[in-house]
Amino acid sequence: MPRYRFTIEYDGSRFESGWQKQNNGKTSVQGSMEDAAFHLTQSQTRFYPAGRTDRNVHALGQVVHADFSKYYPLKSLHDGMNWHLHNSGCRVVSVAPCNDDFHARFSAKSKTYFYVISHSRTCSIFDQNRVWWIHNSVELNIDLMKLESNSLIGEHDFSSFRDRSCQAVSPIRSIEAINFLLQNNKIIIEFVARSFLHKQIRIMMGTLVDIGRGRLSDISGILSAKDRARAGQTAPGYGLFLKNVSYV
Amino acid sequence: MPRYRFTIEYDGSRFESGWQKQNNGKTSVQGSMEDAAFHLTQSQTRFYPAGRTDRNVHALGQVVHADFSKYYPLKSLHDGMNWHLHNSGCRVVSVAPCNDDFHARFSAKSKTYFYVISHSRTCSIFDQNRVWWIHNSVELNIDLMKLESNSLIGEHDFSSFRDRSCQAVSPIRSIEAINFLLQNNKIIIEFVARSFLHKQIRIMMGTLVDIGRGRLSDISGILSAKDRARAGQTAPGYGLFLKNVSYV
Repeated sequence: MPRYRFTIEYDGSRFESGWQKQNNGKTSVQGSMEDAAFHLTQSQTRFYPAGRTDRNVHALGQVVHADFSKYYPLKSLHDGMNWHLHNSGCRVVSVAPCNDDFHARFSAKSKTYFYVISHSRTCSIFDQNRVWWIHNSVELNIDLMKLESNSLIGEHDFSSFRDRSCQAVSPIRSIEAINFLLQNNKIIIEFVARSFLHKQIRIMMGTLVDIGRGRLSDISGILSAKDRARAGQTAPGYGLFLKNVSYV
Repeated sequence: MPRYRFTIEYDGSRFESGWQKQNNGKTSVQGSMEDAAFHLTQSQTRFYPAGRTDRNVHALGQVVHADFSKYYPLKSLHDGMNWHLHNSGCRVVSVAPCNDDFHARFSAKSKTYFYVISHSRTCSIFDQNRVWWIHNSVELNIDLMKLESNSLIGEHDFSSFRDRSCQAVSPIRSIEAINFLLQNNKIIIEFVARSFLHKQIRIMMGTLVDIGRGRLSDISGILSAKDRARAGQTAPGYGLFLKNVSYV
């Protein structure tokens, strides 16, 4: 069966669940993709993502793969999927054939996510559901956030920064880079790693914000405690974007 | 009665009507502002805009004025209005007291609108309802669009470029500037004038696109015909943004 690799984007706020299809009838990105493929091909197709994003989390460059029952011209697959995805919050950005041993998740070398905070008096209506709004009466020490974020870079036991429901066997992860970008009243923080634990980025973000507000300090100490209770709040899903996945 | 001047932004796709309140129960920007003011002050307040935008048209810097029954601290007015606007597609960006002779529409010296075209294979899900998507298999001669747009600048009889329902006494308007900005696969065209006729920008845009596609030519000829039937289609409302209003 021919395997195809799709790059897709989606507005997480348009789905009741995140990536993963649920048995409760709620809309999900996976469900929308599989429904579209079924309408296009008249056969069941299963999609596997590079990262199973949570509810409300967006993607600009999620990568997914699927085995189709037969070969399709790429143009038909691309435009046909988008035709059937039309009423959903998801779009195919590109599609390419790939080898049978390509796996969207296991072949990935690194993933880049970014998180957007709007630090402003009023959150723009055009940013609704796309940023974490923090009122500008709340002071944020961004220099301190940057400084402390350095302690997250590299290989660590991230037990303090994973959701209690996380099912990963190992809590060890390696963060390649964390980049801060300030843009008008937005704070955009990019995270690069081969993989992340469940809600890891949102817990790191919530902790960094708590550090910026002076409510928490000492990321190194939080890391070495290996205790979720020591880290900060879990930042809202709607500020998080899966930017791209790299396979080289 | 103290008069206040508000700068507001709104996502036009979130209202069933445009600016103007209708007697049919449909949501409108005016209706949302007046409901919010009523909840805040317990008295009826009427809002007057710089420009009565149509259905689906957005605003980043619409200016409106209203007379309130008494003085309010500006912070209460700003945050209180936004509190009550929370579930609407509209936000107050700023508020200031103004003189009794200030009128959002009649005091305006110029208004700037921009129109966004996405000329791409797939319209990004994040641009939905915020651009006019033209598939990139349709060729657009942007240089020719720019060249022909020069004929619209200055004072002209815009009878060919106004909606048949336009109630303005005179079809004469004066366009100060038209600016093209190309940004990735977006074409953003800015229009500056003291005022515009009903749907004038959308008809100018539709005509420019028809020129870019080679379906129409000669804006000068279309202008001098003074005949709506000679101009192009009316571009969709959701690509249009009221950027700002200048009073100096």
